[in-house]
Amino acid sequence: MWGKLQGAIDRFSKIAQPGEEQEATNSKPRKFTYGRPEFLQLNDDEVQVCQDIYTRPIIVPRDEMLLLRTAGYAEVINGGKSKLNEDQSTSKQFFIKKKSVRNGAASTEIPLEPIPDGGPMNEIPVTYFAIFDGHAGPDAAVMASKLLHKLIEEKLNGVKDFIFEIAGPTKGQLGESKHDSKSISIHSLVIGALEQSFISMDQQIIDEKQNYTISGGCAVIVALFLLGKLYIANAGDCRAIYCNKKVTVQLSNDMTPHYERQRIMIQAMTRPELIGEDFTYNEYTRRITRNDIGKRILYRGPMMTGWSYKVADEDDLKVPLIFKLGGKSRLMQTIGVSRGFGDHDLRVFDSRIYLKPLLSAVPEVKVFDLKSNVEDAVLVMASDGLWDVITTEDVRTTVYNVLNQSRKDDPKRFNAVAQELVMQARGTPIHGMNGWTKKDGTAGSFDDITVLVIPLGDGV
Amino acid sequence: MWGKLQGAIDRFSKIAQPGEEQEATNSKPRKFTYGRPEFLQLNDDEVQVCQDIYTRPIIVPRDEMLLLRTAGYAEVINGGKSKLNEDQSTSKQFFIKKKSVRNGAASTEIPLEPIPDGGPMNEIPVTYFAIFDGHAGPDAAVMASKLLHKLIEEKLNGVKDFIFEIAGPTKGQLGESKHDSKSISIHSLVIGALEQSFISMDQQIIDEKQNYTISGGCAVIVALFLLGKLYIANAGDCRAIYCNKKVTVQLSNDMTPHYERQRIMIQAMTRPELIGEDFTYNEYTRRITRNDIGKRILYRGPMMTGWSYKVADEDDLKVPLIFKLGGKSRLMQTIGVSRGFGDHDLRVFDSRIYLKPLLSAVPEVKVFDLKSNVEDAVLVMASDGLWDVITTEDVRTTVYNVLNQSRKDDPKRFNAVAQELVMQARGTPIHGMNGWTKKDGTAGSFDDITVLVIPLGDGV
Repeated sequence: MWGKLQGAIDRFSKIAQPGEEQEATNSKPRKFTYGRPEFLQLNDDEVQVCQDIYTRPIIVPRDEMLLLRTAGYAEVINGGKSKLNEDQSTSKQFFIKKKSVRNGAASTEIPLEPIPDGGPMNEIPVTYFAIFDGHAGPDAAVMASKLLHKLIEEKLNGVKDFIFEIAGPTKGQLGESKHDSKSISIHSLVIGALEQSFISMDQQIIDEKQNYTISGGCAVIVALFLLGKLYIANAGDCRAIYCNKKVTVQLSNDMTPHYERQRIMIQAMTRPELIGEDFTYNEYTRRITRNDIGKRILYRGPMMTGWSYKVADEDDLKVPLIFKLGGKSRLMQTIGVSRGFGDHDLRVFDSRIYLKPLLSAVPEVKVFDLKSNVEDAVLVMASDGLWDVITTEDVRTTVYNVLNQSRKDDPKRFNAVAQELVMQARGTPIHGMNGWTKKDGTAGSFDDITVLVIPLGDGV
Repeated sequence: MWGKLQGAIDRFSKIAQPGEEQEATNSKPRKFTYGRPEFLQLNDDEVQVCQDIYTRPIIVPRDEMLLLRTAGYAEVINGGKSKLNEDQSTSKQFFIKKKSVRNGAASTEIPLEPIPDGGPMNEIPVTYFAIFDGHAGPDAAVMASKLLHKLIEEKLNGVKDFIFEIAGPTKGQLGESKHDSKSISIHSLVIGALEQSFISMDQQIIDEKQNYTISGGCAVIVALFLLGKLYIANAGDCRAIYCNKKVTVQLSNDMTPHYERQRIMIQAMTRPELIGEDFTYNEYTRRITRNDIGKRILYRGPMMTGWSYKVADEDDLKVPLIFKLGGKSRLMQTIGVSRGFGDHDLRVFDSRIYLKPLLSAVPEVKVFDLKSNVEDAVLVMASDGLWDVITTEDVRTTVYNVLNQSRKDDPKRFNAVAQELVMQARGTPIHGMNGWTKKDGTAGSFDDITVLVIPLGDGV
């Protein structure tokens, strides 16, 4: 078992079987045609140009296509790990509307509770940005980029009565007496709406696979601006950071098998049949060989954080469930990302073991107040194509270098920042070689790269 | 189902069926005779006196029986929730010995690795304090108080070669080349030894139940002083705090079903058969009734941290897996503590559902450096009998009030502190009533109370 897969591992790929679409091409149609993000408004020829893995052109929105909040965007395709750029992105504004329930417009909806009278607020604007980083096929990312915001809109409107009640003028009294909702805050409802819509999105992929080809899976990160707060919902290894002129703060945790060790180990321990006969949920400080059998070795079991010893037996020759391969932690030697959508058909190479039961579609959601410390600050969200090769601190330096060289009234300045970040991460082609190199001589990213740069305050 | 148990719930008890020993009295002998902590050196008559639930005498060590580190200790029995004081405590010193392997004394032992030559250190002293808070019978706590430190000694000595190598003069070089142990530090080995010995302790209870009566379960907290570091290993709802003249810092998290919600929910979701037909792993903001069916309600599922909505159905009438009853969160309406030893026979009242698969014996271990900030500091460890009625801040005030009134060279001053803390938590009997009241008029603790006060520096 050991090493069987190692030859197949591509350090550029999140999946140990690069290029292999998990779903055999069959007669089912695709639900959505492959394309680039809607806000780029590219025609078919332009989409083709984006997929040139030799020149790797950096794409930014046209001048007249400004994103919400004057956010900047840039993307580039990978250097050859897949035929298509499997990253996707979406930017939308929608509303939580008080009215649709009151006048019975949405008559099929079952009201949660009657909403209180009065209050000047009739709708709450929500600004949504998302990046989807696909693997083993483009479809899950494309589908989620078209639908996730609609699910979030639906789930938020599903609790609108609560939200308006808590946000509205009749606050306190009603909030407590009518709903036992003492502990229910707006942000717990927004977090719940995000969590629920991610779960629904993944369920919809399962449901629609009956009729459509939906290949692969995707990591996803969402930024939601709502009532003066920023919500970051992350399921995968995209990443969001806050930076101002002095500091950077990472706003999301990368959801890798290594980071999620305990959740995964507990599930595997609880249902050992999920990991089959070839894997073990013990960890070791080194590879255990037949020579070790009968001798004492260091190990740690599920739920342990320290190291202890045991006498090695045959079971210790099995492959650890979570193990670093090619520099990245992988679950059952297969996948390097532990949350996201899709991957329902993904199996361990040459086995009947499915990965999906140990993966999760639920995001980790963090909330940040936008009332202070935002004056000169920006939010940078990107797929791991950026973060694999550039430190958060270098990102911050680049952000303010570019901004300082631009006029504050130039609405395209954040596109310039995004473009420069993608450029630095991609680097330049090595003459005559299938590789890219950064300015400092180290390897550029061979992965798809997508970057959003979103100003948080007016003083940037 | 709802309310069926509520009448049986005693707010003083960690278990919803107070007084009921989980194991039917049968012909099996007890492995250890019930008694009070060994360091108190009480004879049978004195043990009897300790069990007076009407006068509730506060017990401290005799003058000549000083604990290690001149630590203070005090205990008192509960006000009637059980016949015996089910708390136990242990204080021991033992050693990690280089020699026993080298001269082959422990010849049955399989050496982990040959140890390097030289180095002045031949043994590492380890100072151990523990509190065990039993429930539903005294045996698990008694047994663990007699055996846990031996297991820890065994597990630490099992990795002694590593510990001496890392701590010794040949450090760096050997540590990396011989063992692939780059990431193995002494503290990760101590944490592993603690985790492994807790797991072994619980397994030993299972094994010995074949031949002995071992009733109930227990929470456990351990403080280990080793090579300039303090390790706090906690499995249950005992608690350790650091305090100096200015601040208190909680050194352990109370392991309740509420705190451990995610671990427990994931296990239940992964194996729903563990929770039977009467419980649900969804949570609600209020009790759901038959009137709610078909209407939208707020809920959250496993792995969600926010609240969302769903249309209520029959399943939502089930009892939430983790729910606050009588002010404390309980798992399946039964137990208020989610980690510890024993409880292997504990079932949900009037059902076949066992609690144990959702409980854990593994401690959460935290490490604190004793090189700085310890001059005037003390460690206070106590069962929940103390923490239920006194805030950490009030504990700190009392500690320094008593210490300031005593001479620094009085070796018994920490006993005086422990005694005063127990006194304050117990309070005084309410004349003619089965209750106790604190100085401020609020209810005193009706529970067993055990307090250890351990100086951390020389300047206290």
